[in-house]
Amino acid sequence: MSNKQDHPDSNLFPHATGLAHKIVGEHQAEQPLKLYSGWFCPFVQRAWTVLEEKKIPYQYIEVNPYHKPDSLLKLNPRGLVPTLQYDNKPLYESTVICEFLEDAYPDHGPRLLPKDPFDRARTRIWTDFCTSRIIPAFHRFLQFQPMDDKAGLEEARKEFLDKLNEFAKEMDEAGPFFLGEEPSLIDFVIAPWIMRLWVFDHYKGGLGIPKDDAAWDRFRTYQKALEERPSIKNTLSEKEHYLPIYQRYADNTAQSELAKATRKGRGVP
Amino acid sequence: MSNKQDHPDSNLFPHATGLAHKIVGEHQAEQPLKLYSGWFCPFVQRAWTVLEEKKIPYQYIEVNPYHKPDSLLKLNPRGLVPTLQYDNKPLYESTVICEFLEDAYPDHGPRLLPKDPFDRARTRIWTDFCTSRIIPAFHRFLQFQPMDDKAGLEEARKEFLDKLNEFAKEMDEAGPFFLGEEPSLIDFVIAPWIMRLWVFDHYKGGLGIPKDDAAWDRFRTYQKALEERPSIKNTLSEKEHYLPIYQRYADNTAQSELAKATRKGRGVP
Repeated sequence: MSNKQDHPDSNLFPHATGLAHKIVGEHQAEQPLKLYSGWFCPFVQRAWTVLEEKKIPYQYIEVNPYHKPDSLLKLNPRGLVPTLQYDNKPLYESTVICEFLEDAYPDHGPRLLPKDPFDRARTRIWTDFCTSRIIPAFHRFLQFQPMDDKAGLEEARKEFLDKLNEFAKEMDEAGPFFLGEEPSLIDFVIAPWIMRLWVFDHYKGGLGIPKDDAAWDRFRTYQKALEERPSIKNTLSEKEHYLPIYQRYADNTAQSELAKATRKGRGVP
Repeated sequence: MSNKQDHPDSNLFPHATGLAHKIVGEHQAEQPLKLYSGWFCPFVQRAWTVLEEKKIPYQYIEVNPYHKPDSLLKLNPRGLVPTLQYDNKPLYESTVICEFLEDAYPDHGPRLLPKDPFDRARTRIWTDFCTSRIIPAFHRFLQFQPMDDKAGLEEARKEFLDKLNEFAKEMDEAGPFFLGEEPSLIDFVIAPWIMRLWVFDHYKGGLGIPKDDAAWDRFRTYQKALEERPSIKNTLSEKEHYLPIYQRYADNTAQSELAKATRKGRGVP
C-alpha cells in the first residue's frame, strides 16, 4: 500500500465508467479468451475495439496497475496491458493482438487487412506510421514543458499537425475510413489517440487545425466516423476520469512506459 | 556535385563487393519487380535476403544516395531504400516488404511466418522486439560518445547485451534458428545487425559477451547459423568497404536517418 501511495499515478480511478462500464459488465463471465485491461489505456482500446468489432467472446479483466493480479504476472512477468490470454498462453503488443484476432477468428468480420497483397502492405505501412510517427509526436506535444516556451510549444504542435496532415492526405477520398467505406487495422490502431485529441484543447491551448483545407476537411470527416463507430464509442469512459491521468502527461510527470520513453526522447516502447 | 563533396557520408563506396557483387551481377536484367537498394544498408539486406531465400525474380538497382535516380523519386519522393517496385507501385518499410513477399508469392518457400495463429503472433512479437529494442540499443552503443566516458560506455554496452540476452532466452532450444530448424521472419529482420557485430570489436573495445552461459552459448549457435546461411552471406560486401561508413557511426557523425534519430535519442525512424 505504501508503494501505491507513493506512486504519482496512484489516484487512478479504479474502473471503467460511462459506455465502457456497460461493455465491461457484459464481459465478466468466464471465457477461455481473456483481455487483461486498463480501462484508460489507449493501447488496450486497440485490442478491445477489435474484439468488439469481431464479436469474439472474451472475458474482460480490469488490472489495477499497483496490484497486478498473479494470474497476469504468471502469464506476462512485466504485467503490461493489454495482455491477451489465449489457450492459457499470453500475447501482448496491441497491434500484434489485433492481427492475431484476425488470424485466429477468420470468420469474424470486419476484415482488418485487405486480401490483395499490395493493399495489405500499404495498410501495414500506414498502421506503422501511426505508432512510429503520429503517437510519439502526440506525446512530445502533450508532454511539452515548460509551457512558457512559446516557440518550443509551437514547434511541438506543428510537428504533430504535420504528421496528422501527412496521414490525412493518404486517406481514401470518399472514406469515411482510411481505406474507404469499411474500417481497417489502421483505424483501430489510431482511433484511441484521435478520441483523445480534446486533451490539447484542455492542456495545450488547442490543436489549431486549419480551416478551409481539403486534407483537414477529410480529417474531420474521419474523426467523426471514428467517434460514431460503436466499438470505439463503447470502449470509452467518462472524460472526467481521464482528466487526472492526462493532467500528469501535460505536466510531464506521468510514469507510464510511454511517458518515460517520451521524456527520454524515444518512441513507443 | 558540390552537395556531394559537402556531405560527410559522400565517400561511400559506389557498389557491392565480394559475394554481394556476384548476386548483384545476376540481377541486372529488367524485371517487373525491382529492388532499389544500397549495398551497405542493413534494412535493405532484410528485403534482399528474403528475395534470395524465396528465389523470387527481381531486378537489383543500386541507388547512389547523393544522386537518386528519377525512377525512384517518382515512386517514393523521400527516395529511401529499400523501395520495392511492384506493378509500377512503390512499397517501403523493410519488414512490410518482407511480409508482402510472403503474401504475394505464397508458393515460394521458406515460410516467414508459421501457420498457427498463436505462433504467428509470437513471431511478430519477437520480430518487433528486434526493431524496437535491439537495433536502437545497438546504435546507442555504437554511436556512444565521448569514448573516455567509461561508465557511460559500459552502460550502453550493458543495455545492448541485455536486449540480446533477452532475445536469446526466447529462442527454440535446439535451433539453430530462432523458431527451430528453419529460418523465419525474425531471423531475416535481425540478421543484418548480427552480421555487423564486428563493429564493436573494431570501434568500441569489444562486445564482451560472457562465456559459460547457456543463453550466450545459444546465441553463438544462432550467430553461426545466420553467418552460414547463403542468402545472408551472399548479400554482404567486403568488410573494408563498410569501415568508412561505420567509422562515422562510431564517431557519431553519420547522417543517415537512423544515425540522426539515435542522436535525438529516438528509435528506428
